[in-house]
Amino acid sequence: MQHDDDDCIDFLAGHAIVIKGGVITAVLPVAEAASIRATTRIDGCGQVAMPGLINCHTHSPMTMFRGVAEDVPAEDWFNKYIWPMEVNLTDSDVRLGANLAMAEMIASGTTTFADHYFAMDAVADAVTESGLRANLGWTYFSSDGKAGLEKSLEFALRRRGTADGRIQTSLAPHGTYTVNDADLETTAALALEHDLLVHIHAAESRAESRRSVAVTGFSPIQVLENTGVLHARTLIAHGTGIVADDIPILARHAHNVGVASAPKGYLKMAWDTTPVRLLRSGGIAVGLATDGAASNNTLDVWESMMFTALIQKSVETDPTYMPAQMALWHATTGSARALGMQDHIGKLATGFKADIILIDLSGPHTQPIHNVASTLVYSARSADITTTIVDGNILMADRILRTVDIAPTMAALVPRLSALTDLSHGKTLQTYGDQA
Amino acid sequence: MQHDDDDCIDFLAGHAIVIKGGVITAVLPVAEAASIRATTRIDGCGQVAMPGLINCHTHSPMTMFRGVAEDVPAEDWFNKYIWPMEVNLTDSDVRLGANLAMAEMIASGTTTFADHYFAMDAVADAVTESGLRANLGWTYFSSDGKAGLEKSLEFALRRRGTADGRIQTSLAPHGTYTVNDADLETTAALALEHDLLVHIHAAESRAESRRSVAVTGFSPIQVLENTGVLHARTLIAHGTGIVADDIPILARHAHNVGVASAPKGYLKMAWDTTPVRLLRSGGIAVGLATDGAASNNTLDVWESMMFTALIQKSVETDPTYMPAQMALWHATTGSARALGMQDHIGKLATGFKADIILIDLSGPHTQPIHNVASTLVYSARSADITTTIVDGNILMADRILRTVDIAPTMAALVPRLSALTDLSHGKTLQTYGDQA
Repeated sequence: MQHDDDDCIDFLAGHAIVIKGGVITAVLPVAEAASIRATTRIDGCGQVAMPGLINCHTHSPMTMFRGVAEDVPAEDWFNKYIWPMEVNLTDSDVRLGANLAMAEMIASGTTTFADHYFAMDAVADAVTESGLRANLGWTYFSSDGKAGLEKSLEFALRRRGTADGRIQTSLAPHGTYTVNDADLETTAALALEHDLLVHIHAAESRAESRRSVAVTGFSPIQVLENTGVLHARTLIAHGTGIVADDIPILARHAHNVGVASAPKGYLKMAWDTTPVRLLRSGGIAVGLATDGAASNNTLDVWESMMFTALIQKSVETDPTYMPAQMALWHATTGSARALGMQDHIGKLATGFKADIILIDLSGPHTQPIHNVASTLVYSARSADITTTIVDGNILMADRILRTVDIAPTMAALVPRLSALTDLSHGKTLQTYGDQA
Repeated sequence: MQHDDDDCIDFLAGHAIVIKGGVITAVLPVAEAASIRATTRIDGCGQVAMPGLINCHTHSPMTMFRGVAEDVPAEDWFNKYIWPMEVNLTDSDVRLGANLAMAEMIASGTTTFADHYFAMDAVADAVTESGLRANLGWTYFSSDGKAGLEKSLEFALRRRGTADGRIQTSLAPHGTYTVNDADLETTAALALEHDLLVHIHAAESRAESRRSVAVTGFSPIQVLENTGVLHARTLIAHGTGIVADDIPILARHAHNVGVASAPKGYLKMAWDTTPVRLLRSGGIAVGLATDGAASNNTLDVWESMMFTALIQKSVETDPTYMPAQMALWHATTGSARALGMQDHIGKLATGFKADIILIDLSGPHTQPIHNVASTLVYSARSADITTTIVDGNILMADRILRTVDIAPTMAALVPRLSALTDLSHGKTLQTYGDQA
């Protein structure tokens, strides 16, 4: 798959990708590649090569809570299940959840993810071992006091650039409704001082946006501007509550602001979806995401890509929008832009990181192929991915994971499940929604 | 998976399913099954057994047109692509498309499907060879004259009960907008005389329902009642244009009427979805479906199940509806009811047909398991199905198809694609929508 410019993707038949030192050094006809001396050759004949998928917002360790809080409203999901359960977490649990997430992400073709959670050293260790690329942020609430932000900063400075440069970091204030304006102002100043991304939940639902206006007089996006956050590089999770009045604000900061959309979970919560067309009208990058497995049930960006193409048609009442090619763009180049990494990942082009996936389209559900883009978006699924490469390293080949083995992880995690889901302590991390 | 009653499913750990003569003769603890003499034993340890999925409405041979008409409105889909292309079809093409569909359905755990297309002897032959169970109807339009309905009836009477009883048949008038009232009246009389199902598109979109009222003064559902069709056993495809006023009519015929819902394609066409909650309020059976691969891009009922659970939440603005267990019910027992086959298929219980699938939940995307129902609906995908059994015969084991080989089918189909998609003849089967 080739990206000619920001909105147009294309496919080249019979081409080879040459990798050296973790970087793509050429994309050229197979015949021309035959004479190149290579230590490893992968036969991708009959498969499609694409840039690895990019997950712009997740909470990877939450795989441990997959399926624990189902078919409930967002308020109950947070207040009755997730925030009380998260009181039970140990660093070791976070590592187990992260290990499982690395396996799932590699298997489903994700090569880079942006993560937002606690005990992030455990996640950084899992990333280092797994070979994935990530931007990691340690979550904090204002209720944590000064220590929360300090820990997030200390982690961000200490781990960024590690794992051969595959780990980048962010400051990770939880949200505009859980972090007060003073702390957001401090966050913005520190992000600018240290050139860090700010990764934050904002306008995640229409209800949150309405509450924000009712309580503060400002929309969550206005709060981000007022507190200076939008002057830093900012990654906004969800944005389903972004309205037309927010667009001029975001447009002023379009060069360094992105929005991460995780559409499956919005259906599940009966929320509106991210207004992708509106955001694009303001030139704002929209990346794809899965959120955590506790709400989305998978960490499958391929699924997010299909949902985005389909749900945008539905909410825009326009079957021509978004087309399959645009969905592929959002899963790759668009997501790279949302993370501010568009110069390094998200394209199969010379000079870009060798983050590549191969997809087998020979299955009965993907035949015949009249149109590669629509076959990929509407017929294929992540199980058709055979090969995942990050930084030139093969993390999965022939659907076999090479860097992660979930057997020991599951052996350690399963005995912990009853303790992790125990609610008898009566405590909670935070309170969500109108009950806050 | 067990069905205690029509809405409640349950899962039994450590049980075995005993099959004899294509029928389930017992479901009992593994220890008790150990002493039974069996010619074949399948080790399902660590997997979930479910009734095979039931696809209540498809056009199986349309796999040949998968991906050929994308990101376009319904009018263009029909008028610019599909109906002109279908002029090119030969019986041999239909057989190739059907072969590919059999492979896709077996691989994705469908054991029974209701089909609506042309040249249905080719489909019946494919069903016979593949080992699947089906209800087959030969499509007719009033524009075919008397011959259309006669052919549909002749096929239905000649092939029903064949393939060891796995093939049942229906009369298949295309829709209330393409078959006139006189032909619908004849259809109804013949269906009652011969005890045949009537399988018909009706109220497939809001636009169609509005056009029906504007042109005839009646909603499509009223047309079905006025012409006597609802007095026969009736399977209504789509029904996304069914409104509250239609419910009392359908409720009067609830004992022999079902609606087939294919939600992925409705998103793609930017249509409303089938009003499942409204239909259930009238006691009307709703089954799951995929429509043809030319609009839905897959024949994957598992996907339809996930979409149904998620989209119902969204359109009802109620995250508690529909819960995962109810989605599983609709994919199995509910679909069996929609086809009028609830006494034979759709449950794992003594006396039911041995139509069974096994699902492997050991993958990283389906671990850990806090709740089997939500793991199945929200995390698993059809690629996790390892085994498909129909009538006690193993059609797929360890993800290897045993009765269908798509290689010769694809070798014959690919050279036909340019002729199949040729539009230079300037002809069309029908005209759709406001242009009709």
